[in-house]
Amino acid sequence: VVVAIPIFDGLTALDAIGPYEVLARLPDAEVRFCAAEPGPKRTEDGFLSLTADHALADVKAPDVVVVPGGRGARVGDHAELLDWLRASHETSDWTTSVCTGALLLGAAGLLQGKRATTHWMFLEQLREHGAEPVSERVVEEGKIITAAGVSAGIDMALTLAGRIAGDEVGQAIQLAIEYDPEPPYDAGSVTKASREVVEAARSRA
Amino acid sequence: VVVAIPIFDGLTALDAIGPYEVLARLPDAEVRFCAAEPGPKRTEDGFLSLTADHALADVKAPDVVVVPGGRGARVGDHAELLDWLRASHETSDWTTSVCTGALLLGAAGLLQGKRATTHWMFLEQLREHGAEPVSERVVEEGKIITAAGVSAGIDMALTLAGRIAGDEVGQAIQLAIEYDPEPPYDAGSVTKASREVVEAARSRA
Repeated sequence: VVVAIPIFDGLTALDAIGPYEVLARLPDAEVRFCAAEPGPKRTEDGFLSLTADHALADVKAPDVVVVPGGRGARVGDHAELLDWLRASHETSDWTTSVCTGALLLGAAGLLQGKRATTHWMFLEQLREHGAEPVSERVVEEGKIITAAGVSAGIDMALTLAGRIAGDEVGQAIQLAIEYDPEPPYDAGSVTKASREVVEAARSRA
Repeated sequence: VVVAIPIFDGLTALDAIGPYEVLARLPDAEVRFCAAEPGPKRTEDGFLSLTADHALADVKAPDVVVVPGGRGARVGDHAELLDWLRASHETSDWTTSVCTGALLLGAAGLLQGKRATTHWMFLEQLREHGAEPVSERVVEEGKIITAAGVSAGIDMALTLAGRIAGDEVGQAIQLAIEYDPEPPYDAGSVTKASREVVEAARSRA
């Protein structure tokens, strides 16, 4: 299974790393971090760079595509990436996004007429790309799977691991990364957080 | 808040990226990825490098230390890192680990006589460092906090964010990363996974 994860300056690291950490554990997995220009890519807060080892042009017909989000997904020139997404989607088994990575799938024209999700703050922007925003953690539409904000990529990737390699492998990967969540709060979605917390999250963003 | 995350070849990316993604959102946070030798560090599967921008010697007296794990934590020469951990722990507000990062805290002598946790496959190895293994997701012992395997660093960091900046900030960060977990399986701990899944996870490791 070749998994391609395109990255860019201004990405949110966990959007990419959550699915990577799951999908890299699939049998015979090969994960390729790629970019229009290979090399180090800075996260949106500037604290870290992840390296794209591969040029987009060298990653042809991956089985799985995972598009992360972050401020960098919403600004700048992504023309080469969008072309690559359209071409890759023609032959992929699965085309997926995490967080505002969905806006890149949308900009590539892949979400037209489809249900999709993204980070809760950007849900309505999916309409600009002809998609129907859905407030769910993981949304499957045929071979396109979109995940909600940042950490939702872990759930999306476990779902995908099960589809690709069966439930026992999916469960073994969940156990390998000891994903038995116990958040100290129950404020992880807009429907659960208090109004004050939603406002605090908005004003900090 | 200065958060130091020492990295090394052979790390597990999510061990570091989970807490980073939470703690970088603290007010006035500065996250410094550091290593004995700055530069790119490869993950244990070889698919990705994260860059340490800073030399350990240049990161003095951080407020928070987060030590990730991975195969690289269990092999090789970590003498400079262990010296740095001992020195940093003297002045830190919080000294923490994720997954087998606890074995590095242990090797530095910081877990002597303390309750601690790590990835479920390595719990008993904590005894070699004089620690008492505890099968919990997040274990607090004074200013030392250890987390279980890989994904547990997210829960640990949210707990820590609340301690540092209060519950409202902790909750706003949880909402910002939309951490409202919905794993498709309930196999994330050895007590919940079937015997077959535990065996599959062990044989794949």
